[in-house]
Amino acid sequence: MNTKKYRVGEGGKLKLSAFKTNETGKGSEAEALARIDARRPRLAALQERLYAEGQQSLLMVLQARDAGGKDGTVKHVMYGLNPQGVTVTSFKVPTPLELSHDFLWRVHAVAPAAGMMAVFNRSHYEDVLVTRVHGLIGEAEVKRRYEHIRAFEALLNGGHTRIVKLYLHVSKEEQKQRLQARLDDPEKRWKFNVGDLKERERWDDYTKAYEDTISATSSRTAPWYVIPADHKWFRNDLIGQILQDTLENMNPQFPEPDFDPRTVEIK
Amino acid sequence: MNTKKYRVGEGGKLKLSAFKTNETGKGSEAEALARIDARRPRLAALQERLYAEGQQSLLMVLQARDAGGKDGTVKHVMYGLNPQGVTVTSFKVPTPLELSHDFLWRVHAVAPAAGMMAVFNRSHYEDVLVTRVHGLIGEAEVKRRYEHIRAFEALLNGGHTRIVKLYLHVSKEEQKQRLQARLDDPEKRWKFNVGDLKERERWDDYTKAYEDTISATSSRTAPWYVIPADHKWFRNDLIGQILQDTLENMNPQFPEPDFDPRTVEIK
Repeated sequence: MNTKKYRVGEGGKLKLSAFKTNETGKGSEAEALARIDARRPRLAALQERLYAEGQQSLLMVLQARDAGGKDGTVKHVMYGLNPQGVTVTSFKVPTPLELSHDFLWRVHAVAPAAGMMAVFNRSHYEDVLVTRVHGLIGEAEVKRRYEHIRAFEALLNGGHTRIVKLYLHVSKEEQKQRLQARLDDPEKRWKFNVGDLKERERWDDYTKAYEDTISATSSRTAPWYVIPADHKWFRNDLIGQILQDTLENMNPQFPEPDFDPRTVEIK
Repeated sequence: MNTKKYRVGEGGKLKLSAFKTNETGKGSEAEALARIDARRPRLAALQERLYAEGQQSLLMVLQARDAGGKDGTVKHVMYGLNPQGVTVTSFKVPTPLELSHDFLWRVHAVAPAAGMMAVFNRSHYEDVLVTRVHGLIGEAEVKRRYEHIRAFEALLNGGHTRIVKLYLHVSKEEQKQRLQARLDDPEKRWKFNVGDLKERERWDDYTKAYEDTISATSSRTAPWYVIPADHKWFRNDLIGQILQDTLENMNPQFPEPDFDPRTVEIK
């Protein structure tokens, strides 16, 4: 599975309309599900090495519109990983304490330690998306925040952290169906937020905000991927592959002991 | 599977020698593994309800001697749960900052929020075990800390947190075999700590410290279980059952919406 075509290059101007939301690749759903299952043991093995090595970490940033599939991605793509090596942070509306700091303060606090994988379900990117769409910050501040984000991510990169950023790309019609499903299914209703309908009215403003943001902050070391996300199975397969490719490339190793095991006697 | 016989009552004086380390129950290993697999979807469903409800939380405290199976328990018992709803904290030797606070400070900070499951891999109990065995605190301080622990756990209980404490009970011979395996297997060697051999020499001191601690801190609302842990499959099956029973008893529910879904129209 070639993931490169979904990766956003550095510089240039992204148009989301150039990306399909309903792509399914070449194979069938059954093939994708088989591939996802077959990938799990390898992901778990790579994660164990990452943890054992304790030198590198991986940060996966998930952004999407409401009902875009962030929770589902965590649930399905992370399934089977050892929770001891994974932290998932769901960023909500900032608290008064968080607002009394700069916008990266709460994010920096939960950056992954060496050996760990961290998932941000929403992230610091909300601070250049929802704030901008609602006019809470002006264009000049948006630009300043892009700079701050680039510097922050370079800081993490310069340490031990590999960063992968995923925009889950769904169509307006698919969002409608998912929101309706949340209304109709009592077991999904807790996920329905009346406020999401207000955000939906600003669909085009969000499109523009995402395009500018992804264009301004995709880099070689902290790339964005635009993930066709109308079909959950395709989304899960593609993200699983990106996760695996990234970990393979990081190539974590079990550490060498700082002693000679043959000299140790257990009484 | 009846878990009650492994539960330690309130008051009284526990003797670990009264508990077998190599118990395997009535069934075979194959039956236990099938039961573990069959339990996973139910655990995942209960966890989703706990998260959706957002009113209660579950804290699982894992204590054991070195190589007692704490990491393996997290890996195998938590397998398949949604990492978005689980935090695992591995407590290490306290940092200077942590030591500049009371011993419950770092623990309180990572207590589970409503809707969450938290696992403590080691815990505040180290502060009445390793510290006592090494003579860092005296008997009077041990007693005071028992009181502080009881009060702290009552505070969590009085909020929304159910507490389950597990002592993984392995024999001295089983520990020897596991430490040897860590020496022999290059993929396990990173887990070997030469210092563990020094702790092993204090086996009987730890036995006494565990007996006193478990006796002093097992309560109806925050019970200890002594888990026969020589056989990993039996340990995983038993802990899975305790986890399921606890969640079933908490009986989390999907929340009712605070709006009438029939009146909502998605445009």
